[in-house]
Amino acid sequence: MSSQVLADYLQRREKLIAEDRALRVDRIRANHTAAELKADEVVRNIRTREAVSVWGVEGGDVPHPYPGMEFLNAKDIILKTDLYSKVVSKMPKGSLLHVHHNASVEARTVLNLALGHPAIHIRVPGPLDASSLKYVLPDIQPIPAEQYPATVNPASITDVTYTGGWVPIQKARELFDPALGGPDGFDKWVLGTFVINPSDAFRTYNTPMKIWLKFGSTFAVTDPIIRFVPIQKEYLRLFIRSSIEDGISYIEVRMSFFIKYILAEDAKTRLDLRELLLIYEEVTNEIKAEMKAKGFDLVGHEDGIMSKPLLYYAEPLLRFAKKHPNIPFLFHAGETLGDGTAADMNLYDAILLGTKRIGHGFSLAKHPKLMELCREKNIAIEVCPISNEVLRLTSSIPMHPLPVIMNQGIPVVLSSDDPAMFNSMGLSFDFFQVLAASEVTGLLTLGQMARDSITYSMLDEMSKQTAMIAWERRWANFVEHVAAMSS
Amino acid sequence: MSSQVLADYLQRREKLIAEDRALRVDRIRANHTAAELKADEVVRNIRTREAVSVWGVEGGDVPHPYPGMEFLNAKDIILKTDLYSKVVSKMPKGSLLHVHHNASVEARTVLNLALGHPAIHIRVPGPLDASSLKYVLPDIQPIPAEQYPATVNPASITDVTYTGGWVPIQKARELFDPALGGPDGFDKWVLGTFVINPSDAFRTYNTPMKIWLKFGSTFAVTDPIIRFVPIQKEYLRLFIRSSIEDGISYIEVRMSFFIKYILAEDAKTRLDLRELLLIYEEVTNEIKAEMKAKGFDLVGHEDGIMSKPLLYYAEPLLRFAKKHPNIPFLFHAGETLGDGTAADMNLYDAILLGTKRIGHGFSLAKHPKLMELCREKNIAIEVCPISNEVLRLTSSIPMHPLPVIMNQGIPVVLSSDDPAMFNSMGLSFDFFQVLAASEVTGLLTLGQMARDSITYSMLDEMSKQTAMIAWERRWANFVEHVAAMSS
Repeated sequence: MSSQVLADYLQRREKLIAEDRALRVDRIRANHTAAELKADEVVRNIRTREAVSVWGVEGGDVPHPYPGMEFLNAKDIILKTDLYSKVVSKMPKGSLLHVHHNASVEARTVLNLALGHPAIHIRVPGPLDASSLKYVLPDIQPIPAEQYPATVNPASITDVTYTGGWVPIQKARELFDPALGGPDGFDKWVLGTFVINPSDAFRTYNTPMKIWLKFGSTFAVTDPIIRFVPIQKEYLRLFIRSSIEDGISYIEVRMSFFIKYILAEDAKTRLDLRELLLIYEEVTNEIKAEMKAKGFDLVGHEDGIMSKPLLYYAEPLLRFAKKHPNIPFLFHAGETLGDGTAADMNLYDAILLGTKRIGHGFSLAKHPKLMELCREKNIAIEVCPISNEVLRLTSSIPMHPLPVIMNQGIPVVLSSDDPAMFNSMGLSFDFFQVLAASEVTGLLTLGQMARDSITYSMLDEMSKQTAMIAWERRWANFVEHVAAMSS
Repeated sequence: MSSQVLADYLQRREKLIAEDRALRVDRIRANHTAAELKADEVVRNIRTREAVSVWGVEGGDVPHPYPGMEFLNAKDIILKTDLYSKVVSKMPKGSLLHVHHNASVEARTVLNLALGHPAIHIRVPGPLDASSLKYVLPDIQPIPAEQYPATVNPASITDVTYTGGWVPIQKARELFDPALGGPDGFDKWVLGTFVINPSDAFRTYNTPMKIWLKFGSTFAVTDPIIRFVPIQKEYLRLFIRSSIEDGISYIEVRMSFFIKYILAEDAKTRLDLRELLLIYEEVTNEIKAEMKAKGFDLVGHEDGIMSKPLLYYAEPLLRFAKKHPNIPFLFHAGETLGDGTAADMNLYDAILLGTKRIGHGFSLAKHPKLMELCREKNIAIEVCPISNEVLRLTSSIPMHPLPVIMNQGIPVVLSSDDPAMFNSMGLSFDFFQVLAASEVTGLLTLGQMARDSITYSMLDEMSKQTAMIAWERRWANFVEHVAAMSS
């Protein structure tokens, strides 16, 4: 057999691989600059090196680490990598298109905001001890000045004399029983109710159905704090500032309207949700960011027992669409492991009802015709890798169906969903996990996803052009910088 | 808005769903009998009922059960369901096309075979105690009569006087320290080294890379027992008989040729592997089953550090194909979580080298062009759900990419791979897991997969026709029976 036969084979192999990957966003764009190609190579080398030097090391605090492993266990390792600190965290991300407004600021920061405001009080059903600490959720709220407790030195919520009334949160922290850790023990307990912890995700609540119970409780605990106007304003400022720091230029926020008011500074007056939009306007004007919350969506646990499928709302939604043809639908759909379940079937309705993007679309990979429609109609999928992993749709990023969807030529925008509850922030961790868990995806892929996050945003055409020009400038600087790094 | 608008919507919805599922094997076949349709409905009703009455019950031995959960934890629950005992276990399965010859009989049965033969002896490095019991692997082998230990009453392998020599396995069991459980403790320890246990898969070896260490050790321990001619014959008989009981009509066995001999009845003479094929012939003739081992494959841990990709062997394989055009290739490929890794890339080579089927093809879902080729060239995928789950490619069956592959119109044959190591047997458990974890897949889907297991077997055309006629007759009886069950 001549070596020509092998050479022919290798040529046919190259061609087949190219055909197989032809639909990917990083292949469609052909005119990469020399700096982009060099930066991509540098990043691949760092990834390869750290797969051994960081992820291949046994015996550390985290047992059996690997690239793309569970985020809640991996976070401290990720922060130590060059791939994160020198590359991904510095990358201009484009837009953040799937994030919930009440889950966007880190737990520690939210607790600091609460500790910093005199109206914020705390109560629990009765005195806390080592055992009740494991399951009692605190009630933390602003209360009107006239309801402040009369005593200057209230009982500690860990004291046997405590009978369940409101205590100023600062006092409750100060007086927290030293046997339970004192102020640090207080912080640990409260923060544990603000976020999903590894023991929640991997033991107590090990299925999507179960983890949504814990997930819901984190919102219940933090919502009354955030819903308070003075804190809401600061919360929003911190969210926008940290997003800017993370290289995000534009955000479309998902708002929920379950509770139809926000609470004024007096902690008594219930303000219309219009006030919330005015706060958004005020704060965004203030930070001179261009951010608009527009687009109509339905949010919740699609698989939940109480959940109604999109089909249930088909008639009012069809009516709404006819009446308001300029308000785009941006539905959550397919955030499920189900195969033919109601949540999986929501994908048909989201597309038939004319959604412009799909929130999650986790189960889309199972639907050849729907993938074809998304490709043809340019319906981008808001993929939220860390959210999907923490909420138990996938056990790690290598198991995530993202490559299936990307390789079908469907535009993908990476999003963070509810980063506060996942002990995450910005978009860097989601970008990192996707980059670390593949040999095909590289920096150019992430760059194209960032471009798509502008293309598939709800900005008007003029604003899109402006945003794209600004992003391309930052990107060019970034890739020059990465290309110059020694890999 | 008229109700006509909603009616139109519902019609468009039906059409879209039909288009999306048009490529599935259960849709291509249009002429289902009334009994088949009724049986399918009965099975769907049982599944729906047991999702609540069996899988929805908390507080049993298995925490947080759900349909399609980890097999090693689920098995005892599965056995109690009507879906398993009354339906799936009775179904005629067609062919078993992906099973390894030395991993096909239950651990307990293998131990009984060993206990039943006087040549089989055991040794360990030194006396076993409660702590060494956790990690010491037994050396279990036939030894020639002249090497049998001289003493009639040897020291127990748990006795401090034991110095590491061979002990008849029956004696070792009898004399096992009562403090370590006596004979039952012996069985528990030995069986634990024959199979993968939940603590192995979900704690100690929680990634595909790690679990292959344990997986490999189960073969190392059992292989010398099975490789002994008198046991090999009985092993094969038991495998074929249990397969027949499970409704399997035809088997293509994957053989490995790592060790180039089997051991004759004298426990000394090394026989050529040709003898192994003669045993197959003798036993199959004896049971009058039609079974042939043909087809060339390469087997091993694709992701392993020592593994060579198919590409490495491209030249000799191309040469082999030219020389032996009638010997089909049936490659393992894509048994990996990797995206663009060498094991993932094996899929390109398997297809280019002309494989007739693909063993596992777990990562095929990521490859649009390769899925198109499999569909066009009728390359069936040997999907091994429980193997993939135990070996940590997927955490549960709802996360398995099987629906992605099926919905692309690619033929799938469900297979068991190494059931002995997974505490499984036959095909019923694999069929069960697939049925339980979907709302789309039903009895008709499983029926079509069984048909495809004959169609895509390596039987010659005449034998296929005979096998198919026999299967259709059993299937018709089976669906009549199921259709008559009260659902």
